[in-house]
Amino acid sequence: MGVVVSLDKARSPGPGLKPLLDLVEKDMDRLNNLILSKAHSHVDMIPKLARHLISSGGKRLRPILTIASAQMCGYDKGEQHIPLAAAVEFMHTATLLHDDVVDESDMRRGKKTARILWGNEASVLVGDYLLGQAFKMQVEVGIMDALEILANAAAIIAEGEVMQLAAAKNMDTTEDEYLTIIKSKTAALFAAAAELGAVVADKSERERAALRSYGNNLGLAFQLVDDALDYSGSKEQLGKNVGDDFREGKITLPIVLSYRRGNAKERNFWKRTLQDGDIEDGDLEHAAELITKHKALEDTLKRARHYGDMAKDAMAIFPDGKHKSALIETIDFCVAREH
Amino acid sequence: MGVVVSLDKARSPGPGLKPLLDLVEKDMDRLNNLILSKAHSHVDMIPKLARHLISSGGKRLRPILTIASAQMCGYDKGEQHIPLAAAVEFMHTATLLHDDVVDESDMRRGKKTARILWGNEASVLVGDYLLGQAFKMQVEVGIMDALEILANAAAIIAEGEVMQLAAAKNMDTTEDEYLTIIKSKTAALFAAAAELGAVVADKSERERAALRSYGNNLGLAFQLVDDALDYSGSKEQLGKNVGDDFREGKITLPIVLSYRRGNAKERNFWKRTLQDGDIEDGDLEHAAELITKHKALEDTLKRARHYGDMAKDAMAIFPDGKHKSALIETIDFCVAREH
Repeated sequence: MGVVVSLDKARSPGPGLKPLLDLVEKDMDRLNNLILSKAHSHVDMIPKLARHLISSGGKRLRPILTIASAQMCGYDKGEQHIPLAAAVEFMHTATLLHDDVVDESDMRRGKKTARILWGNEASVLVGDYLLGQAFKMQVEVGIMDALEILANAAAIIAEGEVMQLAAAKNMDTTEDEYLTIIKSKTAALFAAAAELGAVVADKSERERAALRSYGNNLGLAFQLVDDALDYSGSKEQLGKNVGDDFREGKITLPIVLSYRRGNAKERNFWKRTLQDGDIEDGDLEHAAELITKHKALEDTLKRARHYGDMAKDAMAIFPDGKHKSALIETIDFCVAREH
Repeated sequence: MGVVVSLDKARSPGPGLKPLLDLVEKDMDRLNNLILSKAHSHVDMIPKLARHLISSGGKRLRPILTIASAQMCGYDKGEQHIPLAAAVEFMHTATLLHDDVVDESDMRRGKKTARILWGNEASVLVGDYLLGQAFKMQVEVGIMDALEILANAAAIIAEGEVMQLAAAKNMDTTEDEYLTIIKSKTAALFAAAAELGAVVADKSERERAALRSYGNNLGLAFQLVDDALDYSGSKEQLGKNVGDDFREGKITLPIVLSYRRGNAKERNFWKRTLQDGDIEDGDLEHAAELITKHKALEDTLKRARHYGDMAKDAMAIFPDGKHKSALIETIDFCVAREH
């Protein structure tokens, strides 16, 4: 499938993840080894399924935040940031496994989802296993504040997922309500990941709050761009199906804006397709037309830039340096990314 | 549906849970209050669904083990055993929610399952939420050894569930392999629950190992009796459908024994029904006949008594007293129960 809604592509080559990746390169080898070893089990199906997801080309953005913020905070006393980063990635992976079951998704990052290859049952259970392993790694590190952050994040993420389920197919969802959902289901883990870097480096609440705020706002921006891409990227770029959110009846910000700005006839269209799930040929294209008409993608990205700006300002308390600039460029990368 | 295979019912009135329940009565009020408050969330669906399960008449056997063993170990310094017991119950509840999705079960304890009432999606996600809450409570208690025990249990339980999934429909499963599965998926949480009592009371490895062994063997006995009841209890007694395991193609010990003791024709019957899932009218009744013919239920219960005996001997190091006898009578109750 081609592009549904065109985004402005004038900003090449644009910001990248490279500065951040260069800084964490050495630690990433350790992280990847730890992730692979902890996804191991004498129960065959577990490493098979876990590795499918782990090696499927995710950016590992969340654990990288932990490692980079630990480095920025001057952590040099050991390697505790590595298992904490791995725990963050496992929590994320478990969420993906469970999400694909909940959303009945067939594709993720251009590959068939685990639930298609091994079934819903295995996806639920291996997700649980990865949560257990994440929990074990955190306990092995044994930093109480880190445990608290991740335990809170686990409960909040699940709460956000349930909120999203309850809001699904509800056209009355406001932008505020939608923000509450993505703050829980996406931004909470970004915030935890970044804050852990300060915790492992034994920094005070000042640095912790700054990195938490950075992560939270970066997470919001990241999710909003994701929402926009679902109506704009091509299948090849995005690695999942364009229009998935539409077909699943997911109310994301582009929809919230289009619905609120639409006339009665348009609102009936959204109700029929998303609320009642009655989708016919040509409806995705019509949805894209309405989104374009109401500038809903542009404004979703504008909102994303707003949170990106907040993330940048959160970083102000840290002295200038390679890590700070790389983390800031990461914001720009997330906001400008096309995949 | 009536009784499929009759068990010997000569042992009334028999041992009960009452001695144990009397001892923990005061703490149980605190436990129940904590459980209800921690199942709370501003997201409506979470308390609704969690309370459905929490109030559906489970025996709370696992958290009771934590409370009773803490009392037996002389714990009187505070109330940390309550949140630890609640965490154990939440981990159990989360497992039930996910299990019902994996097994596609319609009924549990005589009620419709959460997945039937609210859907698979909500069951997966609320299970995740309860795991997160369990994790949070453990972190709040902040006893590292307790965290380690429960983190290990979480990973082992999930591993056991995946093992069971992989073994499902495999008629070659040996008794040993089956034991490995139920040791992980069921006995691990019983063992953790009992050991936590010694941990919170700051007892040494000697007491911890004894209670771990008690819990492990009690859990094995409990699961084996469950397996037998699935082919013997009436729907009213058991609160779930008789023959559920059969219809789901679950290889439990009564099946392992019947298959191994059967002739070629009988083995073909088991392969057709359980391995290939080709079940016709009258097959459950025929399965029950074969199970009776090979004394597979009696021998499953005999094995259960064997583990029950091991659980009793594990208690030998504790001085005689009300708690010790109540915990021992609990073994007899679990082995002799008809529901």
